Amino acid sequence: MGLIVQKFGGSSVANAERVFNVARRVIETYDQGNEVVVVVSAQGDTTDDLIEKAKEIDERASRREMDVILSAGEQISMSLLAMAIQKLGRPAISLTGWQAGIITDSNYSKSRIHRVTGERIRRELDRRNIVVVAGFQGINKYDDITTLGRGGSDTTAVAIAAALGAELCQIYTDVTGVFTSDPRIVKDARKLDSISYDEMLEMASLGANVLHNRSVELAKKFNVNLEVLSSLERVPGTIVKGESNMEKMLVRGVTRDNNVARISLCDVEDTPGKAFQVFSLLAKHKISVDVILQSIGHDGKKDISFTVDLDNLDGALKVIQENNAIIGASEIIHYENVSKVSIIGAGMTSNAGVAATMFEALYNAGINIQMISTSEIKISVLIEKEYAEKAVKAIHDKFHLGE
Amino acid sequence: MGLIVQKFGGSSVANAERVFNVARRVIETYDQGNEVVVVVSAQGDTTDDLIEKAKEIDERASRREMDVILSAGEQISMSLLAMAIQKLGRPAISLTGWQAGIITDSNYSKSRIHRVTGERIRRELDRRNIVVVAGFQGINKYDDITTLGRGGSDTTAVAIAAALGAELCQIYTDVTGVFTSDPRIVKDARKLDSISYDEMLEMASLGANVLHNRSVELAKKFNVNLEVLSSLERVPGTIVKGESNMEKMLVRGVTRDNNVARISLCDVEDTPGKAFQVFSLLAKHKISVDVILQSIGHDGKKDISFTVDLDNLDGALKVIQENNAIIGASEIIHYENVSKVSIIGAGMTSNAGVAATMFEALYNAGINIQMISTSEIKISVLIEKEYAEKAVKAIHDKFHLGE
Repeated sequence: MGLIVQKFGGSSVANAERVFNVARRVIETYDQGNEVVVVVSAQGDTTDDLIEKAKEIDERASRREMDVILSAGEQISMSLLAMAIQKLGRPAISLTGWQAGIITDSNYSKSRIHRVTGERIRRELDRRNIVVVAGFQGINKYDDITTLGRGGSDTTAVAIAAALGAELCQIYTDVTGVFTSDPRIVKDARKLDSISYDEMLEMASLGANVLHNRSVELAKKFNVNLEVLSSLERVPGTIVKGESNMEKMLVRGVTRDNNVARISLCDVEDTPGKAFQVFSLLAKHKISVDVILQSIGHDGKKDISFTVDLDNLDGALKVIQENNAIIGASEIIHYENVSKVSIIGAGMTSNAGVAATMFEALYNAGINIQMISTSEIKISVLIEKEYAEKAVKAIHDKFHLGE
Repeated sequence: MGLIVQKFGGSSVANAERVFNVARRVIETYDQGNEVVVVVSAQGDTTDDLIEKAKEIDERASRREMDVILSAGEQISMSLLAMAIQKLGRPAISLTGWQAGIITDSNYSKSRIHRVTGERIRRELDRRNIVVVAGFQGINKYDDITTLGRGGSDTTAVAIAAALGAELCQIYTDVTGVFTSDPRIVKDARKLDSISYDEMLEMASLGANVLHNRSVELAKKFNVNLEVLSSLERVPGTIVKGESNMEKMLVRGVTRDNNVARISLCDVEDTPGKAFQVFSLLAKHKISVDVILQSIGHDGKKDISFTVDLDNLDGALKVIQENNAIIGASEIIHYENVSKVSIIGAGMTSNAGVAATMFEALYNAGINIQMISTSEIKISVLIEKEYAEKAVKAIHDKFHLGE
């Protein structure tokens, strides 16, 4: 018995029938004696439809006005859900971002939450209301409507859970939890009962699109217990929490990321600050670089290779070409046919055998490694895209993750 | 050069092309050096679509939640209009009801405006912004969203004009102004250059559905200059204002109202308080009575006849039948085949000839008068519905209104 925040995405409330399904899930939790705050996204295609409407007016409409129009989407879904809960005989009230006190900065279309002034939500909970809150939206200090950008509704849910000290924040999705690998690729992929924030962060950033990293980061910061679970099947999900996992298995999952491209700068001068020069240029243009490989210099020259998100490839190439007078690469090579395959697990890299086991799996499968990158809790390799699924399966098997 | 409030209805902003048409009208006024506040309704069928969505959940959804969902409609149209104005190179900002400070009571779905705290609008005007405000919606003292019910957007426009001391409040419609009669019936109906608030009130309540009475009443109270004009044609409209009209013509217009039914209570006791009994009963059930006719009593009995709106007929009959033990009518007759035809004009009834001229027109046309009602500025007659158009034409001719 405590406060539980539940978040449902746009497809979960896409039509009246589904809205009632969500209402029933919410009521189940409420009837067990819990206080319930429900965060909802806009229905199904509503957001796309509103973007389309705006584009008919102006392809590059002002971000402030885009946030005004988009926030109407959750205003619709939240009131429908409140109506459905009321129809099923439980007290409910819907609140927009500004009503719920979701205070953000003024970076329209991708605002960050400054704080949640939870008084109104608390007051409605004290009245025994089920409180339905619009995800994805907030209000800035000018009393203007803002939206939170990608992963916004998850972030709203976690922020509310943190502000109100919720016992649990449940993120309902179309999967039953976090898996050791993509079940579409690896047949015996296993659902994890729990995972740490850091492991989840790596999983998410590596293509297991269950939770957006912003929400996990926020959950970590405020120690919010997260649960990823299915909005369709009634099975326990995966708990994301602070404690490092006590299960035996070091490696928690294998992921694949196809949204990646490699760029190589050949024969740049082997002087101090050269890499800094390149990457600060890219950073200035807000292009994130992931794996970096620098060859050992010889003859006063070296090669610098790195990966960027596929959708940043053109931008990155443009920046480099325009500045090559300073960078001085003899050649700029890019390659799109790559995938990043990673293993994730807390404390993994302190165990020397793990990397070796991963590379052995790839060697046995006859897959060449182009680049390697390691962090506290992950090891990533860049390989030919066509071998990515094969690599994931081989590694999953090698670590016995399906058992 | 001053502050002008312009209001555009839902059909005026139904699609991108029309939104741009409105934007150009607005910009024209702005470029003449005026400050401009634009009030918009929801696009075309948006409100109906949202009602439909709500009804799929609950036919009798809570009025608070209905207001939440419906207010999303203007949030969409107002941002689109602001985008269009910006696209055409002028600064614009959209404000919801709560952002614009439209403070209402808590009578959800038909709230009345308490006041407009115009600071935000004023601030945006001072920044030379064209300010686009959502019509039809406001906020109550609990910070909950309310809507204003029928005629809401016109009322928003007038309330803003009053609060900010606007020079003029223009209501754009699909007609070019207020006419001496319905141009679909009377071919030579003439557009009036100006009309007084009181005359407009009678015109509106008698079926000339150009302006909702709420907005006219508000305009009268705060002496706001209103103009009714076409959103399509570029011609001057009709000014509605306080001063009684100096034009020669006493009779300003002829209207017809088919939304009327007659009820007769036969042989009720001819004692004091009998009429009061009947009409207080109806008032208790929120049924408005219009024309009332009471026969001269004889043998201690009299007949009471009155008219109600057609949609209130069933309700009125039910109330009377259920209470006929007290009322004591020997028979309750109702008749739906009636129309109310009226002439309107300030100071008209102090001119004895006017009523006579009207009755003469009807006599010449061979039309029998069932009931007569007069007020300061109108004379109404109840006649057979099938003769209504003929009556309107005959009266319009008789008073030379087309000249």
